[in-house]
Amino acid sequence: MKNALDKLAAELERPPFHTWLRPRAKSVDVEREEVGVAVIYRPELSYDSSRAIFHGGVVAALVDIAGYATVAIWQKVPTPTTALHVEYLRPAIGDELLARGILRRMGRSVARVDIEVSAGGKLVALGRATYSTSGAQG
Amino acid sequence: MKNALDKLAAELERPPFHTWLRPRAKSVDVEREEVGVAVIYRPELSYDSSRAIFHGGVVAALVDIAGYATVAIWQKVPTPTTALHVEYLRPAIGDELLARGILRRMGRSVARVDIEVSAGGKLVALGRATYSTSGAQG
Amino acid sequence: MKNALDKLAAELERPPFHTWLRPRAKSVDVEREEVGVAVIYRPELSYDSSRAIFHGGVVAALVDIAGYATVAIWQKVPTPTTALHVEYLRPAIGDELLARGILRRMGRSVARVDIEVSAGGKLVALGRATYSTSGAQG
Amino acid sequence: MKNALDKLAAELERPPFHTWLRPRAKSVDVEREEVGVAVIYRPELSYDSSRAIFHGGVVAALVDIAGYATVAIWQKVPTPTTALHVEYLRPAIGDELLARGILRRMGRSVARVDIEVSAGGKLVALGRATYSTSGAQG
Repeated sequence: MKNALDKLAAELERPPFHTWLRPRAKSVDVEREEVGVAVIYRPELSYDSSRAIFHGGVVAALVDIAGYATVAIWQKVPTPTTALHVEYLRPAIGDELLARGILRRMGRSVARVDIEVSAGGKLVALGRATYSTSGAQG
Repeated sequence: MKNALDKLAAELERPPFHTWLRPRAKSVDVEREEVGVAVIYRPELSYDSSRAIFHGGVVAALVDIAGYATVAIWQKVPTPTTALHVEYLRPAIGDELLARGILRRMGRSVARVDIEVSAGGKLVALGRATYSTSGAQG
Repeated sequence: MKNALDKLAAELERPPFHTWLRPRAKSVDVEREEVGVAVIYRPELSYDSSRAIFHGGVVAALVDIAGYATVAIWQKVPTPTTALHVEYLRPAIGDELLARGILRRMGRSVARVDIEVSAGGKLVALGRATYSTSGAQG
Repeated sequence: MKNALDKLAAELERPPFHTWLRPRAKSVDVEREEVGVAVIYRPELSYDSSRAIFHGGVVAALVDIAGYATVAIWQKVPTPTTALHVEYLRPAIGDELLARGILRRMGRSVARVDIEVSAGGKLVALGRATYSTSGAQG
């Protein structure tokens, strides 16, 4: 769906932090309520000066961004992050860090999203995040 | 303790991602096993182009970094992050984002750290993270 | 404060599941917004038939109950649990499983509580839970 | 696979707490590394004396048990729970509480399991848990 992918791209462009991180809209599956967002490797995203490995903080930031985007596609109002949970499975080594956001439940007050992160063809992190759909963060 | 603060500063300087984020060593309380790490506000850390508000991904990255540093002060080997959990309480508005890492338990295979993040004099996020002390991430 | 402790005891008596688990009101610190709830060991709470060790599911249930009670003392309406997070630090060995609920933030839509669980004089688990203060669970 | 289902049933019978909770082996999918465990409703599992609704503590206990069982099918040594995370989506109303454990990664030091809980044909909770495969809990 072209419109949804354009909407995702527009959503990802807005925050100043994204101008630096450069998350890219990869895919939107309207039927399955899934979204794909990727970040291309560059040295300043790295944990280690001698290896191309994404920093854990970058992985966490991408989990937040991809989860937020998954909710934003179906919501007109801003939905602040209320909680973020990341399990790190493997070092995130690869040219691209790809996050797949999967909407698990859009509730009246909170939306829950699962986020799976892969790099170099391997699953490197499992995320689960919640976003407020009532406008209140606290 | 001067040496511990120097060690924290050196720890924070190493990863290329930190060269961009610029986390600063603020304090080390050896007795209480607590560490303070801060990031100064600048527009590219922001979520919103019209307000000085730290992006949730930046908050999560600082939670990871401060937690890691709390463990690293007392460990000689690298301790990869295994899990990260952040609760966002309020918008992170302020000139400085300050994370206090509190070592909760240094175990044989895993270290647990609580991380409290404040901005503008208010508690804005609660973090809890685990780090592998056996060397294995998975 | 006698009234608050009575209120806690009454709160803990109500659910049928509690008739079996028998959580006991131990303390209420109104100033610090902290609550103490304990469960006395008996074999059917055990993980192991040969050792007096509380089952992890019992620890999780007590974390939920103590967190809920911490919110309930200051709320008139029911506040359903929205998320529960438990870190298990050590085997829960002892005559009594004691949970201390600490209110971290009572928000308009969500309350956050930290819960520390000890047994045999040792910290055995760290809990963090969220409760809906808007009435909606989802 | 008959043997795996028998092994699951035997695993679930052992702890004294289970004699009371009565988790039942429902299914083992060896190929997909998934396990099904259910608890039948009875009043003492309830949160509310006027409605057949499973207590959140019972849901959390079943998440722990189903996750543990998912790991135990493929492990010979005990694997203590190190962390448990439950998101509550809806009230757990129904005759049966069914947990599906899905092995996400069996690592050298830690196993990660997703657990989806349903009741009355609806998804009521999302669980994610970690188990130590090195023998050490802390």
